[in-house]
Amino acid sequence: MAETFVIAQGGGPTAVINQTVVGAVLEARKLYPKARVLGALHGIRGVRDGNLVPLSELSETELRAIAGTPSAALGSTRDKPDEAYCATVLKTLQHIGADAFIYIGGNDTAGTQGILSKASARQIACIHAPKTIDNDLVLNDHTPGFISAAEFVAGAFLSVDLDFHALPGIYVGIVMGRHAGFLTAASAAWSMDEESGPHLIYVPERAFDRQHFIDDVKSAMSRHGRCVVAMSEGVSGADGRSLVETLVPAEKLERDQHGNVKLSGTDLGAAVERMLAEDLPGKRARVDTFGYLPRGNIATLNEVDAREAFAAGAAAVRFAEQGSTSVALQFDGSKTIFRNVPLDQVAGKTQHMPDSILDPDQNRLSAEGVKYFERLVPRRYQVAKPFV
Amino acid sequence: MAETFVIAQGGGPTAVINQTVVGAVLEARKLYPKARVLGALHGIRGVRDGNLVPLSELSETELRAIAGTPSAALGSTRDKPDEAYCATVLKTLQHIGADAFIYIGGNDTAGTQGILSKASARQIACIHAPKTIDNDLVLNDHTPGFISAAEFVAGAFLSVDLDFHALPGIYVGIVMGRHAGFLTAASAAWSMDEESGPHLIYVPERAFDRQHFIDDVKSAMSRHGRCVVAMSEGVSGADGRSLVETLVPAEKLERDQHGNVKLSGTDLGAAVERMLAEDLPGKRARVDTFGYLPRGNIATLNEVDAREAFAAGAAAVRFAEQGSTSVALQFDGSKTIFRNVPLDQVAGKTQHMPDSILDPDQNRLSAEGVKYFERLVPRRYQVAKPFV
Repeated sequence: MAETFVIAQGGGPTAVINQTVVGAVLEARKLYPKARVLGALHGIRGVRDGNLVPLSELSETELRAIAGTPSAALGSTRDKPDEAYCATVLKTLQHIGADAFIYIGGNDTAGTQGILSKASARQIACIHAPKTIDNDLVLNDHTPGFISAAEFVAGAFLSVDLDFHALPGIYVGIVMGRHAGFLTAASAAWSMDEESGPHLIYVPERAFDRQHFIDDVKSAMSRHGRCVVAMSEGVSGADGRSLVETLVPAEKLERDQHGNVKLSGTDLGAAVERMLAEDLPGKRARVDTFGYLPRGNIATLNEVDAREAFAAGAAAVRFAEQGSTSVALQFDGSKTIFRNVPLDQVAGKTQHMPDSILDPDQNRLSAEGVKYFERLVPRRYQVAKPFV
Repeated sequence: MAETFVIAQGGGPTAVINQTVVGAVLEARKLYPKARVLGALHGIRGVRDGNLVPLSELSETELRAIAGTPSAALGSTRDKPDEAYCATVLKTLQHIGADAFIYIGGNDTAGTQGILSKASARQIACIHAPKTIDNDLVLNDHTPGFISAAEFVAGAFLSVDLDFHALPGIYVGIVMGRHAGFLTAASAAWSMDEESGPHLIYVPERAFDRQHFIDDVKSAMSRHGRCVVAMSEGVSGADGRSLVETLVPAEKLERDQHGNVKLSGTDLGAAVERMLAEDLPGKRARVDTFGYLPRGNIATLNEVDAREAFAAGAAAVRFAEQGSTSVALQFDGSKTIFRNVPLDQVAGKTQHMPDSILDPDQNRLSAEGVKYFERLVPRRYQVAKPFV
């Protein structure tokens, strides 16, 4: 049936998002020998503006090279289309004669596909293929892109903890994540034992309290002689205000067009550095903002993540025959399986990290958390305990 | 001859500094069957205080596990011993009956060894084994630890440039390096072509000018639609003041016990972010401070670097028979060789990056720079050019 596919990439890139594009192109080629697959440049904006490249004309060698390259080769966008925007998009899709539109992204992308699917009166299969380093899509066990980013974070904290063994002090690494703490919790995936860092993990799902934080740092310092902290950029107080809003004067905060405080900047790191200098004067303290480094880093591109992202693209093509849907990665108890789930069940919803991933009264992984990360991000390196 | 060695690690750790310790232990075991090798905890402070561990009692398996672990397993120190401190150190060494003291570190460490060697009336061979991610030791082609850190930086900029292809804007990555720009210049080691980032490289060796910087960013933006910048934390203006001192009010600057401005903090990143917001309002701009992430990162531990660090430790043991010296890594036109050079030629001196590594009138690698990095940090990944 489906002969013409359009595919696009939205939101923040990942290390493996191109695998999903290429998985879709090669599956389409396999199932439909005459299939035409067009890639839209810069996400849905490329569909609206008719900026399309004929991916199905590329050889498998060319496609495999793209698949192995991190970040969105077709370009991405932060556009959140309204209904008028969607109408223009639909016009292009109809003009091309598209049977299916596959849009790779997070929960906003699922929302866009829901609007498009209704507007097309279900004439065009609108498929959401999952992607996010935040790991925050509902109905998904985990999401393509997360494992690679988690490997970066796990390796960085393993390494920094060794550094702070050698030269003791307080270290805070700030990790992307506005609403979900999975990526920050991955900091402990390769922690060696109770003594190893990160000693404290702060995620958006648990209220942050300055005095508790300082007490916890002091306690770790007295037990271990050092304190390594993983903190989500989106940590918030009990009043729901993000920590960066609490610490930085309002006139200095940068906001996006939706009025959201920009979290990916250096503000939070600088503010945490000042907070430590004020509350723990004289202690050696260092704060790094990981920023963009974990997101599409080629050095930590994970092979399982790559295969799953490819399979998610292939599944999107197979599911297209049954109409609009969202591809979900689920865990059947032994392996990852790919299911089609209704778009409106995924759209706009955030899968928060379950509270049980952390210990109830401590900012550390629980036994359940350890098990979750052992399965998803198995230890890649064995290291020796330092003498100090 | 030499039967008792003491070994210590100083300054900032690297991914391969433990290789040098283990290289020394295994070489001593090979050359002197009864050799005793004692590791001092936290650098020369461990010698002063008599905190020593018997490394020669460990099995080769145990030692190899330590060698493969990043950061200083024996702990490190920032102590810069004066003559009184050195006298106490010497007393411990004599008390132990040490024939040789191997101290792994940068140019300060070579200085310490010079003082000790004189004070011992050359009774104890004081050997400096090289180590620094800054790559700034004179008489060395490159230094153990640099290649691994350079791999981190090269991979990060390759990846971030792809990210900013997908979502255009200005990106500044701030890289460790107070006086030498080698690690920052390594950002371009895996740059694909003229169009690829980093588009601008700022190192401590060249005077930084705010207006030139802004003009260069504008020019890159108009040519490429994005601008990726690599900046050393130690960049300074023509007046010799570091950029962070120029941008941050004096009362907010953190200084160390020697009065040096702390560069490894978030101050510079925050100040560069403000500078871009002021001079290029409305442009999407992101600044990441790489901080500790490149230094001992297990994900980018380079095998050549590991082998050379091991060989430097072995060379330190071999050279001990001839008395105090500094081990230097030199390039004979086809391979790295290990030479013994006088301590006082290395002590306290900084090997600045030659100006010819960058193009004369541009902030990009020159042909010579490309060649240097191709040899030291050969391209590890092939990636496809994005469609955007």
